[in-house]
Amino acid sequence: MPDPRNLVNLAEIEAAGRAALDPVYVDYIAGAARDEITARANETAFARLQLLPRMLRGGGKPQLDVTLLGSRASMPILVSPTAFHKLVDPDGELATARAVAAADTIMIVAMAATVAVEEIAAAARAATGGHASLWFQLYIQPDLELTERLVRRATAAGCEALVVTVDSPARGANERNRRNGFTDLPDGLACENLRDPRDGESGRVRQIVMSPEISWSHIEWLRGITSLPILLKGLLHPEDVRAAVRNGVDGLVLSNHGGRQLDTVPSTIELLPEVVAAVAGRVPILLDGGVRRGTDVVKALALGASAVGIGRPVLWGLACAGEAGVHHVLELLREEFEHALTLCGGTSLRDLTPDLVRGASR
Amino acid sequence: MPDPRNLVNLAEIEAAGRAALDPVYVDYIAGAARDEITARANETAFARLQLLPRMLRGGGKPQLDVTLLGSRASMPILVSPTAFHKLVDPDGELATARAVAAADTIMIVAMAATVAVEEIAAAARAATGGHASLWFQLYIQPDLELTERLVRRATAAGCEALVVTVDSPARGANERNRRNGFTDLPDGLACENLRDPRDGESGRVRQIVMSPEISWSHIEWLRGITSLPILLKGLLHPEDVRAAVRNGVDGLVLSNHGGRQLDTVPSTIELLPEVVAAVAGRVPILLDGGVRRGTDVVKALALGASAVGIGRPVLWGLACAGEAGVHHVLELLREEFEHALTLCGGTSLRDLTPDLVRGASR
Amino acid sequence: MPDPRNLVNLAEIEAAGRAALDPVYVDYIAGAARDEITARANETAFARLQLLPRMLRGGGKPQLDVTLLGSRASMPILVSPTAFHKLVDPDGELATARAVAAADTIMIVAMAATVAVEEIAAAARAATGGHASLWFQLYIQPDLELTERLVRRATAAGCEALVVTVDSPARGANERNRRNGFTDLPDGLACENLRDPRDGESGRVRQIVMSPEISWSHIEWLRGITSLPILLKGLLHPEDVRAAVRNGVDGLVLSNHGGRQLDTVPSTIELLPEVVAAVAGRVPILLDGGVRRGTDVVKALALGASAVGIGRPVLWGLACAGEAGVHHVLELLREEFEHALTLCGGTSLRDLTPDLVRGASR
Amino acid sequence: MPDPRNLVNLAEIEAAGRAALDPVYVDYIAGAARDEITARANETAFARLQLLPRMLRGGGKPQLDVTLLGSRASMPILVSPTAFHKLVDPDGELATARAVAAADTIMIVAMAATVAVEEIAAAARAATGGHASLWFQLYIQPDLELTERLVRRATAAGCEALVVTVDSPARGANERNRRNGFTDLPDGLACENLRDPRDGESGRVRQIVMSPEISWSHIEWLRGITSLPILLKGLLHPEDVRAAVRNGVDGLVLSNHGGRQLDTVPSTIELLPEVVAAVAGRVPILLDGGVRRGTDVVKALALGASAVGIGRPVLWGLACAGEAGVHHVLELLREEFEHALTLCGGTSLRDLTPDLVRGASR
Repeated sequence: MPDPRNLVNLAEIEAAGRAALDPVYVDYIAGAARDEITARANETAFARLQLLPRMLRGGGKPQLDVTLLGSRASMPILVSPTAFHKLVDPDGELATARAVAAADTIMIVAMAATVAVEEIAAAARAATGGHASLWFQLYIQPDLELTERLVRRATAAGCEALVVTVDSPARGANERNRRNGFTDLPDGLACENLRDPRDGESGRVRQIVMSPEISWSHIEWLRGITSLPILLKGLLHPEDVRAAVRNGVDGLVLSNHGGRQLDTVPSTIELLPEVVAAVAGRVPILLDGGVRRGTDVVKALALGASAVGIGRPVLWGLACAGEAGVHHVLELLREEFEHALTLCGGTSLRDLTPDLVRGASR
Repeated sequence: MPDPRNLVNLAEIEAAGRAALDPVYVDYIAGAARDEITARANETAFARLQLLPRMLRGGGKPQLDVTLLGSRASMPILVSPTAFHKLVDPDGELATARAVAAADTIMIVAMAATVAVEEIAAAARAATGGHASLWFQLYIQPDLELTERLVRRATAAGCEALVVTVDSPARGANERNRRNGFTDLPDGLACENLRDPRDGESGRVRQIVMSPEISWSHIEWLRGITSLPILLKGLLHPEDVRAAVRNGVDGLVLSNHGGRQLDTVPSTIELLPEVVAAVAGRVPILLDGGVRRGTDVVKALALGASAVGIGRPVLWGLACAGEAGVHHVLELLREEFEHALTLCGGTSLRDLTPDLVRGASR
Repeated sequence: MPDPRNLVNLAEIEAAGRAALDPVYVDYIAGAARDEITARANETAFARLQLLPRMLRGGGKPQLDVTLLGSRASMPILVSPTAFHKLVDPDGELATARAVAAADTIMIVAMAATVAVEEIAAAARAATGGHASLWFQLYIQPDLELTERLVRRATAAGCEALVVTVDSPARGANERNRRNGFTDLPDGLACENLRDPRDGESGRVRQIVMSPEISWSHIEWLRGITSLPILLKGLLHPEDVRAAVRNGVDGLVLSNHGGRQLDTVPSTIELLPEVVAAVAGRVPILLDGGVRRGTDVVKALALGASAVGIGRPVLWGLACAGEAGVHHVLELLREEFEHALTLCGGTSLRDLTPDLVRGASR
Repeated sequence: MPDPRNLVNLAEIEAAGRAALDPVYVDYIAGAARDEITARANETAFARLQLLPRMLRGGGKPQLDVTLLGSRASMPILVSPTAFHKLVDPDGELATARAVAAADTIMIVAMAATVAVEEIAAAARAATGGHASLWFQLYIQPDLELTERLVRRATAAGCEALVVTVDSPARGANERNRRNGFTDLPDGLACENLRDPRDGESGRVRQIVMSPEISWSHIEWLRGITSLPILLKGLLHPEDVRAAVRNGVDGLVLSNHGGRQLDTVPSTIELLPEVVAAVAGRVPILLDGGVRRGTDVVKALALGASAVGIGRPVLWGLACAGEAGVHHVLELLREEFEHALTLCGGTSLRDLTPDLVRGASR
């Protein structure tokens, strides 16, 4: 295993992560829906935006910390939910959680984690010796009893917000998986948050259902059973964004699911200005999809995002060097972001204003 | 022959179909006019359009069936006319007809079929055990008597509409055929619809004439000799589209003949919004050219098409696995379309509205 | 030498012509100024324009002939002036002239021909057995006496118009020639139109001077010494085009010298709509640069050109098969143009109207 | 070492320069920030601009000389500051200075030169036998005493203007250097302008500090300690450009530091029209970044720059043939610029007007 600290950027970490993995798992992680047009668009869209930095503004080391819906993070770079971390590292989400906690940012625990949320939370708190910021990602299940049980568990484990993925009325079509015959987790791995709590470790594990029946009434129902902040992840149409604000959600994650659901939807950074306009400052907007550089973070924040999330880079870091790899991913991106902010003449996130970005479709 | 069910998308079926064929026939099928700029544009134009799906709309399994000018189909995906199916499969159009009938959609029988329309219709009906939806594609011949005889035969065989190809005042120039010296059907194959009925199987087969003399007055003449719905296939100029509506045609197939006639005409999906505006809902518009993905179907319908047609994919399916190959093409595309519709938050074709598509030149 | 009739388009003739030539001469012909950006733009710009053909207009075989400033041609495709035909064929401009005359179109004889204009004219007339349409291309020389002598010779030889190249205040920089050390014509070849007539065949050959001193006053001077129609070749700036019309020139050749003079000037087809608007129908506009397909001719004429010229394709034809090669180039392009005109629903050059073309910057 | 005079353009000189150097130094020179998007954009942006030359304007050999803030140059092509010339040639900046002086243009001496400014100035004057135009590039140091000492030295050495680089609140991130482990100058080389003058040749060399503390107040301070003209190099945001003019700076160098500071900032030529509009003629604007061709110079001047600078080409020339290489770079570019100016119908820099350029975002 190479010393991840020799890897100078996220592209190199991705290359090392790919090299360390079974190609079938590489395809599962790197792959996306159908022709993967959206997945590629996420990565190329940032480079088309241009920065117009300010100069000679004086000031010193930038302040990067942020508070999002009551959860503090040392930087506006979160870990978006991704499934099945044990596919790429024996410690799975435990390693991820330790690295994220040590980097003092927010981990959005995936419902499809291969470690139960309680264990993830314990590992995160052990890493900091105290508080760790965790949110929980949820696919609302048609079985509302099961859904409520999951919400209760996540809340009890210390998760501070719910991120409800709403772009999945059906499972996405990663055709690489079909070609590879990759349909099930290998023996010994399971979605531990779906294990029936009455059965213990040998208990039945429920399948995650992605149902077209889920509707705005389910969001209302969820609002009624929890006092945690609720963010919706995956809305893309401006009408839906407006509906979310009207319906009282607490935040949005502007995400196209890494291009893994409907192919040919726009990159998220391309949609951001319009979503920001639709929200008009009433709730915070997070963005994920293609964030690989400090300048990407600068652009997203300048255009109105409160923070960004990263998905695949965390898995590549985990694949190439476990907890240390994830930590290196986060610290590299923090260093790049701080550097870019300084080169933009900024010392605070408030200095990132829309006039710094050119080429955004506003 | 590979099991076509292992092929996960139309691109893979095309690859398998090409591998199974004499390269001269591959060139005949894949080739197009001159530099093939339009043929490529058809395939790339869809990917430049972006989808903005709706979320959280509830609902269940989508309804895909459609009725077009009185002909029912289980989905808005038809089979466009293509010539010479016996070049790629010994059963030729019989195999195609059985697969299309089993998939319960409409086959537009080509005038240049290598099986007579009566036999095609019989095979289709045998496959369903009852009704099969067939339309007949027609090049109006300067010999109007011959033309009328063809119309009578198609009508008697059960064809429910006439699709008049109007973009062929001259034969297209596929330069691959010239390089290959491919000018005639091999021995034993013929355009059976052009065989003189007075002579039986050994009878003279007339050449299909593509004449610049054909004009709007011929359409008027055709209107006078048949009560079948008449669709014009190949109009591209908005003035011509308006003329068609004024002249009382029953429908349009927006098609550039797969790029096989005049090179450098636009892709059809690029023209669709303007044609829809010119037609203003008075007649249904079908579209073919480059439809390879379920999302392509979603885009065409969202922009105002009533259905789409596929051409070359049918031949690749036929080449790689005969009737089963054609069936797989249709079922793959149905599955993709249904999946894309669901991911767009739709359960009915009426849910496909123009606001779902971005990047169309309207 | 391959039978040129097996070559199906101008791209194949170019490939055959290149294969038949010394690479140094290929570089001389194919090369252009500096980075050759304009030369490539000429060839790619046509493909970006789209055609919207008309259908069902009836009619028969198109009429292609045209009369330009009193000179008749059987089609609106002329031969633009190119230098040094003996570099690629022992008969040089004699072979070209015979082929062009046989094709019944206009040859613009280059001042830098390697055969004297009198001999070229004689060969052309011999090929038709009567009249042949020839124009003469002229670089106005600071030595006005020499210039006048040339004009007299061209007129006496039967040239019917003068095409004054005005884009050459200095020689263009073909860096391929510099790398190859190609600076002079090989022994035995010379610009025969510049041979001092008082010395006979062994006489001194003057160098063609490209001088920045040439100005509008020289055009006025030329107007005073000849009654032939005067066309200016090489104006690109709309202000200059307006000045030309004001100054009473008889026609324009919209040309960027095949990209051989100033690099990064626009393709000519891209400039055509603006030049047409500036001229407002007062004089005919010819266009050369990148015409390789019948659809290119259609586009240029639809946008307002009266005819097009071809340059390099003539040399490739000459290189691969001498007179027969040039003839094949002209007949292929005629056939393609006629075919494209038919597919556009046209039977006359007047049917080529601007609405047939989309994507032109008007 | 090849005879540089055989190299016909700057691209060939770059290739020769790269071949002559240790790949680690090639990476240091050619490399830029992060993904090097801006560095590539600088080179490709010029080719997207089109020239519309004027014809028939008469006139003779163009006049190229220019006076900039009191310094005369024989052409509007300067040498931008680049560091560490001894990395590529044993004589380092001495060789460069001799070549630039012989070419009779302005060298902007880099603060990070590996030869002291006094020696550079002496070499330049020796080359001309008299006056040589030198400017001094300055990073304002938080240690103002040190900064003032540098200004005094540069002034005493004969530098006629100060070019203050303002885009470097932090060092740029050339990731190639990180991969190569290239962090320090090799033994024997040092930034001689930073050597403590009290210690002589063995004295302590200070590190150049790039500090985010530098602000407009430092520019005001500098204005108070020197009467030399002050140019700011690196402003990109139009607001900053307006602030500079308000604050009384004497000129601007529109530069993105060769893409070496913040990646994804626009190419400079793309920004020029907007910067010209913001400055409104009140101070001269120089531009560097991607100038490689005479037509690039024409475009920059036509759009409003008073002169251009070249950076990397000087180092490639120096690497491939020392002083002669630098001289060849300058003479090639002069010859190309004069040629392009002539082909544009110009004889004076005043003839380069904005209407000659198309495609600029104005």
